[in-house]
Amino acid sequence: MDYDDCIIALATASGSGAIAVIRLSGKDAITMCDAHFKSVSHKKLVDQKTHTIHLGHILKDGKTLDEVLVSVFKNPNSYTGENVVEISCHGSPFIQQEIIQLFLRAGCRVANPGEFTLRAFLNGKLDLSQAEAVADLIASDNEASHQVAMQQMRGGFSNEIKSLRDELLNFASLIELELDFAEEDVEFANREQFKSLIERITKVLKHLIDSFAIGNVIKNGIPVAIVGEPNVGKSTLLNALLNEDKAIVSDIAGTTRDAIEDELTIGGIGFRFIDTAGIRDTKDVVESIGIKKTFEKIEQSQVVIYLFDAETSMSNLGVVLIEIEKIKNKHPQKPLIIIANKIDKLDDIQLAALTSHIPQAFLLSAKTGFGVEQLTEKLLNLINTGALRNNETIVTNSRHYDALLKALEEIQKVQHGMDNDLSGDLLAIDIRQALYHFGEITGEITSDDLLGNIFANFCIGK
Amino acid sequence: MDYDDCIIALATASGSGAIAVIRLSGKDAITMCDAHFKSVSHKKLVDQKTHTIHLGHILKDGKTLDEVLVSVFKNPNSYTGENVVEISCHGSPFIQQEIIQLFLRAGCRVANPGEFTLRAFLNGKLDLSQAEAVADLIASDNEASHQVAMQQMRGGFSNEIKSLRDELLNFASLIELELDFAEEDVEFANREQFKSLIERITKVLKHLIDSFAIGNVIKNGIPVAIVGEPNVGKSTLLNALLNEDKAIVSDIAGTTRDAIEDELTIGGIGFRFIDTAGIRDTKDVVESIGIKKTFEKIEQSQVVIYLFDAETSMSNLGVVLIEIEKIKNKHPQKPLIIIANKIDKLDDIQLAALTSHIPQAFLLSAKTGFGVEQLTEKLLNLINTGALRNNETIVTNSRHYDALLKALEEIQKVQHGMDNDLSGDLLAIDIRQALYHFGEITGEITSDDLLGNIFANFCIGK
Repeated sequence: MDYDDCIIALATASGSGAIAVIRLSGKDAITMCDAHFKSVSHKKLVDQKTHTIHLGHILKDGKTLDEVLVSVFKNPNSYTGENVVEISCHGSPFIQQEIIQLFLRAGCRVANPGEFTLRAFLNGKLDLSQAEAVADLIASDNEASHQVAMQQMRGGFSNEIKSLRDELLNFASLIELELDFAEEDVEFANREQFKSLIERITKVLKHLIDSFAIGNVIKNGIPVAIVGEPNVGKSTLLNALLNEDKAIVSDIAGTTRDAIEDELTIGGIGFRFIDTAGIRDTKDVVESIGIKKTFEKIEQSQVVIYLFDAETSMSNLGVVLIEIEKIKNKHPQKPLIIIANKIDKLDDIQLAALTSHIPQAFLLSAKTGFGVEQLTEKLLNLINTGALRNNETIVTNSRHYDALLKALEEIQKVQHGMDNDLSGDLLAIDIRQALYHFGEITGEITSDDLLGNIFANFCIGK
Repeated sequence: MDYDDCIIALATASGSGAIAVIRLSGKDAITMCDAHFKSVSHKKLVDQKTHTIHLGHILKDGKTLDEVLVSVFKNPNSYTGENVVEISCHGSPFIQQEIIQLFLRAGCRVANPGEFTLRAFLNGKLDLSQAEAVADLIASDNEASHQVAMQQMRGGFSNEIKSLRDELLNFASLIELELDFAEEDVEFANREQFKSLIERITKVLKHLIDSFAIGNVIKNGIPVAIVGEPNVGKSTLLNALLNEDKAIVSDIAGTTRDAIEDELTIGGIGFRFIDTAGIRDTKDVVESIGIKKTFEKIEQSQVVIYLFDAETSMSNLGVVLIEIEKIKNKHPQKPLIIIANKIDKLDDIQLAALTSHIPQAFLLSAKTGFGVEQLTEKLLNLINTGALRNNETIVTNSRHYDALLKALEEIQKVQHGMDNDLSGDLLAIDIRQALYHFGEITGEITSDDLLGNIFANFCIGK
């Protein structure tokens, strides 16, 4: 990989807008821009201060291609740590393309996905876990995933890892020092203090590893399987849940929400509602395949909603009860919410009959909105959002999760070694291994392959 | 309309990108931003110089919503002429929405389409025709429409109108002054000089009015009807034309070209190719409806291409010749290009037969590319692009065209009046009318209705 050249990319979303921003980064970014930019002040950009904005024209063959604002960021005070120029041009795809082409002909190169952030990492502006958080931040589409990504980008996660790593590194050095004085039988590393550090690290690692359960669902959304026959009101329920969430204000001009069917944000957390074919008892081969799929979807989900029509339930009470039993039998550990929908259609006697036969039923009318607020609370309570509320560090990245598991494994070896009075040289090996896995997270330990994998998932221009 | 408040909008294209820019404009834009922005330098934005950029955090309820760069532009040195703040945030739709909502709650208002540019006009940063050119510039998707919009935005068109208007205004004042001294029979306005000015204005107006023919096609694309049976190679021809144009480099990462079927840019000019059902002779009612439609499409187009298959043409030479005659009869004035396609499949004898029977045929092989370059030249030659090449002022806006026609009408009345020694008071009325129409173009004369109509066509954020 070559990191000496000047890279260019459209930094804003593609398509037409009022303005678009084209970003150049590299040693020669400012002089390259000067060659095609005529400032209204007639001053060269290289002679300007960092973090200043300049009105002028981008020229192509002597003709004005566009009237633009150029922002100058000078090494090392830029996103990448290199010289950076941001050209804010009129937002037509034609102009965007013409300007980018102009600089490509002048010797710039189209940036690879995430290459600006990669350079920021290589220049020490961000550590690796912070760099990864940048992509998560851009991908985040609800409050929870945004909060976790923001915390990680601001270093919350890596600070915790780094401080543990530093302490551990310190002990590792002392133990390795002892090896040099092996014949004198000295002990530089206080074994009690070391033991307490190992215990502390173990506790933190376990806590972080546990947080991945919530971190993963925050990042990817909580899968909820909805089991129910057609016409019991599945889509009305989803709409009711969507409307209940006061945090979402759609139709703000200029912002678009990616409307992915059956993905809702409730209380700032993403839920993915998975529609199933139901589990009606049948001898039909085709239908029984559908039932098999329903159970697979339940398997993949974190929460199951069994939805039935309260109005017709009394006439097929047996079916409803059997279906509930089936789900409980097959997935005894999975949180199950049994919802009696359309209760607005029941009179008092019918309601009493329903609640006496299916006492665990959650009463709801998706149509009138009755019970919807309580349902959103119930859904949120099923998720352990305590860590989120308390602003604790939450691991969302499976690469970090793997490294933490490996680090814990090594730390436990160290612990075991100490319990068995293992010699310093052997202890040191396990400590080094643990340090290695810590370093993988923050990027002290890295490889071109690893970087390639991580940054390939970024968008171009970041 | 209220222009005192602070407006906000996403200025970059909607959707996800590396960054997005949110723009605020208004007297309180900078202080409003200060209320939610914590600079890393701990300085307030109001204390910063204009055209400077500041790193910091947008805070919501004390928590960091995003790490952003804020650009400060101080009245009058901004796009709108007001205080302007541009917030460059991470490009997720969630963050864009959260930041915009934060400022809406703080009292900002979502900008109407084009309201930033409207304010720029109202604050005298742009005249009306320049403001209109901004929307054209963003909409332009080829070199020609871009060049014309850029020239208009930079004032080329309005400068010409303004200088004529000033001269005319000067004479109008002198003539009106004469009226005050009517009894003394003095002549402040030199009639010979005035006559020469009127002639000059007439010439310029006619020239500008004539330029609308090319201006209109540059803006909207040149409609070309392709008449031909299925399988004569229409789509292969379009692809060949597309490939011939060296100026188009697609697949630049980060830029997207809106691929609208059958719209091609050739030599920097947009062409709209309109497929027709052909005009095969028929007694069938349904087919004859198709033929009627074909002639309608020919009517709407500026150029007609009649495309036939050279390989099979000899076996139905009569049909081909009759169809050509039909087009010529119905549209004798319309430029017609008769193309014999697939000539790669002919041997020398067949080729000789073809050219002797249809001597006007343009020989082409869309498949091998033979003749394609000559065809693009031929198409471009049919359009009078001289004005474009010579960087002349070209009128593209039908509102301007209407005003120019009306101004010319009044100027001709003035001319007629002078030829007939009309009294000064009557001359003055016609001159004032002409001045009115000049003023409509540049915006000296305007109304809320007119402004509403013009800016409603803008995108939000501009």
